Amino acid sequence: MCELLGMSANVPTDICFSFSGLMQRGGGTGPHRDGWGIAFYEGRGCRTFHDPSPSVDSEIARLVRNYPIKSHIVVSHIREGNIGEVCLPNTHPFQRELWGQIWTFAHNGQVDRFNDLPLSCYRPVGTTDSEHIFCWLLGEIRENFPTAPPEKTFSEFIADRCRVIGERGVFNMLMSDSRALYGYCSTKMCWITRRAPFGVAHLKDADMTVDFYEVTTPNDIVTVIATDPLTDNETWTKVHLGETIAFQDGLQIP
Amino acid sequence: MCELLGMSANVPTDICFSFSGLMQRGGGTGPHRDGWGIAFYEGRGCRTFHDPSPSVDSEIARLVRNYPIKSHIVVSHIREGNIGEVCLPNTHPFQRELWGQIWTFAHNGQVDRFNDLPLSCYRPVGTTDSEHIFCWLLGEIRENFPTAPPEKTFSEFIADRCRVIGERGVFNMLMSDSRALYGYCSTKMCWITRRAPFGVAHLKDADMTVDFYEVTTPNDIVTVIATDPLTDNETWTKVHLGETIAFQDGLQIP
Repeated sequence: MCELLGMSANVPTDICFSFSGLMQRGGGTGPHRDGWGIAFYEGRGCRTFHDPSPSVDSEIARLVRNYPIKSHIVVSHIREGNIGEVCLPNTHPFQRELWGQIWTFAHNGQVDRFNDLPLSCYRPVGTTDSEHIFCWLLGEIRENFPTAPPEKTFSEFIADRCRVIGERGVFNMLMSDSRALYGYCSTKMCWITRRAPFGVAHLKDADMTVDFYEVTTPNDIVTVIATDPLTDNETWTKVHLGETIAFQDGLQIP
Repeated sequence: MCELLGMSANVPTDICFSFSGLMQRGGGTGPHRDGWGIAFYEGRGCRTFHDPSPSVDSEIARLVRNYPIKSHIVVSHIREGNIGEVCLPNTHPFQRELWGQIWTFAHNGQVDRFNDLPLSCYRPVGTTDSEHIFCWLLGEIRENFPTAPPEKTFSEFIADRCRVIGERGVFNMLMSDSRALYGYCSTKMCWITRRAPFGVAHLKDADMTVDFYEVTTPNDIVTVIATDPLTDNETWTKVHLGETIAFQDGLQIP
């Protein structure tokens, strides 16, 4: 199994604190030694960092942890590989372009018969079930929506397609189209929204505390999604099995 | 004008030395303060670093300069913007997927009437002439070749399409499909192939010397392509105006 980390915020926000916890699970407090990756959206643009080395040892992970890249959406993943060898093309998150937007996808789990899902416009570069599923999903979206549909129509479409994949195995995923952050939970996912009045949070995986009051303004709204809670003194909301969630500017889209 | 840097090698090779020279031109010895980016291919996989800040000040550029990422193809760009504001979505190199391969594109120059070039499958995310041209070019390739054609057919096709764009303005470009590195020269481009017996090279833009004999093995073949020669004690080959060049495993494809 792998671990996912996502963020949606209404102001450009760094994810150094949460990422510090996650990267410990990449070969430190957790077994996810098979690479890691992260995508930071800044407006329509996106920058990514990928490394097939364990995040706990990674030079690049150290940069990401220490250098605050401010972003409104983040999608990150640390991998404990199952399908597909450990190499750069199999390192999440995966990206493609649709509607002139950059789409990012990361998956935790293992899906059977993924090769049956027919591909059209997008083809995988690596050999993971995850990238194949992403290419199928984006092909489905492209075929059904030549341009971006209303948000509600789109969320329902995503929920429907995710259930199709969820029936084939373990499928926890995070995806963004640069405007919203989507999640689907097949076995394990949780989230927390932080807003004023901000308090102190303490990481589970490293002895590290942050007082969000000191690093935010009163209007900031920041939601973090993770496979397992990253802090041990806050209440995280569990996503129901089979549920799709969507966030924009830090707030859940109903 | 912007500066391009490309590498093709027959063994995974780092580009720290050449990149050290290039990044000085990003706001140090050169005026290219409008961001920079680099793509490193490792087999079919590719990792990229993008930063809209000047490379000479960039934390991420420091990492790329100091942390040897070994790669067989590199495409890099530092920008002095003309069309399109300075922001992440306008930062080269641009990437898309075709045939299950990651394609990377970087451009130096300015092209008129780029909006006339019709788009099909690929759409730009930012507002540069460069990304529009890349989307057009990749759409043309996709339409003409459902799968990868023989190398010679493909090189001729690229040369033909590049000439079409070259007629509209300044178009120096580097592109890779993860197997080969292509270049087109409309005004300025040069290259050098380093192989045994290796010698000492000295950077033009920084007081830095490397003895390639000490960091290579006798079978290594490494070609570097740049807008202007990066060293002042070696002979670089100028690309003819209107010429397309292609390299694979460090060697020029005839």
